[in-house]
Amino acid sequence: MKAITVALDAMGGDFGPRVTVPAVVQALSHFPELKVILVGDQPMITSELSRLGYALEDQSINNRLTISHSERVISNSEKPSLALRNSAGTSMRIAIDAVADGDADACLSGGNTGALMALSRFRLKLLPGIERPALVTALPTALGNKTWLLDLGANVSVDADTLFQFAVMGGALAEVHLDRPPRVAILNIGEEEIKGNDLVKRCAEMLSQTKSVNFSGYIEGNQLLHDAADVVVCDGFVGNVCLKATEGVAHLFIGKLKEHMTTSNLKGWIARKLFSGLIEEIKQLNPDQYNGASLLGLRGIVIKSHGSADVAAIINAIGEAVHEVKQQVPSRISDRLEAVLLERHY
Amino acid sequence: MKAITVALDAMGGDFGPRVTVPAVVQALSHFPELKVILVGDQPMITSELSRLGYALEDQSINNRLTISHSERVISNSEKPSLALRNSAGTSMRIAIDAVADGDADACLSGGNTGALMALSRFRLKLLPGIERPALVTALPTALGNKTWLLDLGANVSVDADTLFQFAVMGGALAEVHLDRPPRVAILNIGEEEIKGNDLVKRCAEMLSQTKSVNFSGYIEGNQLLHDAADVVVCDGFVGNVCLKATEGVAHLFIGKLKEHMTTSNLKGWIARKLFSGLIEEIKQLNPDQYNGASLLGLRGIVIKSHGSADVAAIINAIGEAVHEVKQQVPSRISDRLEAVLLERHY
Repeated sequence: MKAITVALDAMGGDFGPRVTVPAVVQALSHFPELKVILVGDQPMITSELSRLGYALEDQSINNRLTISHSERVISNSEKPSLALRNSAGTSMRIAIDAVADGDADACLSGGNTGALMALSRFRLKLLPGIERPALVTALPTALGNKTWLLDLGANVSVDADTLFQFAVMGGALAEVHLDRPPRVAILNIGEEEIKGNDLVKRCAEMLSQTKSVNFSGYIEGNQLLHDAADVVVCDGFVGNVCLKATEGVAHLFIGKLKEHMTTSNLKGWIARKLFSGLIEEIKQLNPDQYNGASLLGLRGIVIKSHGSADVAAIINAIGEAVHEVKQQVPSRISDRLEAVLLERHY
Repeated sequence: MKAITVALDAMGGDFGPRVTVPAVVQALSHFPELKVILVGDQPMITSELSRLGYALEDQSINNRLTISHSERVISNSEKPSLALRNSAGTSMRIAIDAVADGDADACLSGGNTGALMALSRFRLKLLPGIERPALVTALPTALGNKTWLLDLGANVSVDADTLFQFAVMGGALAEVHLDRPPRVAILNIGEEEIKGNDLVKRCAEMLSQTKSVNFSGYIEGNQLLHDAADVVVCDGFVGNVCLKATEGVAHLFIGKLKEHMTTSNLKGWIARKLFSGLIEEIKQLNPDQYNGASLLGLRGIVIKSHGSADVAAIINAIGEAVHEVKQQVPSRISDRLEAVLLERHY
């Protein structure tokens, strides 16, 4: 069994080592091939380890967990351009460097998304044929499947070529998970309107002429969680707003249900008995529940964890990193791109 | 009491006279000041009326309901430009003409949105200072309030000036309903990203320099139903996708809840007895439940009804038309615009 090394920014996210360290300890027992480089404040990390009853010398984690000390953290409010310039010695930069230098197979951070993108692009470089990296995540669907939505905010405006590249990259990632050619769609507005803007129209034309992409046309916002496609592409502004709106509604509904379930009277007791399963079901449909958005288009694997991710969510994100390393997602994307470019140009 | 005349496209929408006629009959008894011009196939309309036990001569509707015969309907698939050229004699065109010619105070249609916009713009003209009309609707919020979202798809791409005009128009409409200066926000993407594109940044700058608009900054998609603002502006592509995504998730959750409430076992029976109110409560949170999106920016009142609207939903839309006539929404918008333009230019 080949070891898979993940460099984890222990300081990124809202809770830092308090959640990243327990997540790593559990992930090590969950993924036997996993090794972790925890990048961050060494005293904080070791104290968190000892709180959990571990020391670096323990056999269970020995040789599988190393700490790479860093005294600096990129704040969430820092502009990507500034963060890039001042990144030396930060936990995020060291974690990305580990991938760039071949010491790790993937990097994971819950920190500043813009900075993560800028640093990844600077250190790892883009795959040939890719103009912009894209942030992608899997949304749960009504039938219990997944739909990959991209871009989620890495690019606030794109052209048709870039959107086309998103479709190819998203398709390659989905294929790794689905093991069949995924249906790729473009997110668009109502049929009775002038159907979409120039961007989607031109991208649709390109996709429909590309045999190596299984293009299934346009879908509308209301079909997003209804298994209408396996991969859905849009610009980062639309994707971000759409994903967050969906999460907002999910929270609203879960909140309403919980109101009924937390009253201390008999009705509340019955509600808890009746609806606890329903809450779980609805939580499963909340896009928020997954964690681990992938930054696609780079010559390396970078996973973005939610800033507010808890231990279980970080373990999910580590799992996504492990899966992408095993499946060699960047070279799969490269292969798909090459096939598409060959088809388009010759 | 001054009469208010609404010209209703009886043929627009998925169900035509089968729902529009009963809706009009009920609306007439609901709104004492209402008069209706029903535009559509006369035999179909009168047969629907007689099915309901009415004849035009009946005292209850006499003088308040007239039929304007039309043999043609604009189909939902027709391109707006073509629909405009071939609109003569269609039910939608005749209904809009009634407003343009001063025979009606407002027009209502559940037909082709793009055609409705093109025809309205052509016949009613834009208000001075407005470059594009916008489609707006009220979303329900967690606290039982409303948030007006625009544009919903009338414009697939806009510039900062147009978005600014949307903010002024949305503010004027919300003020009519709220009776206080509404908080106006721009829909934007996550704070940790490069905050938004040039469009939202430039519009934010314009709004923050405008004292007569109560600008409250950016909101993200997840705050949309959480009372973060009274008016939220975005381009029509983002607004349409966002609204539909929200509706899609809401339907999914309501469906899940209904599954639990309709099981034939004891659990389902108890759920129905104790929590029938819950479904109603949650339905109230579905953006879909309201009906009657306004086309703002015109020298006249045009209300778009959902194509799939049922009788109750059409009555809601008629109610919105009556309210906008009473409050003279177009001249309110004009007044606000004038105030804003004066402030900006002098």
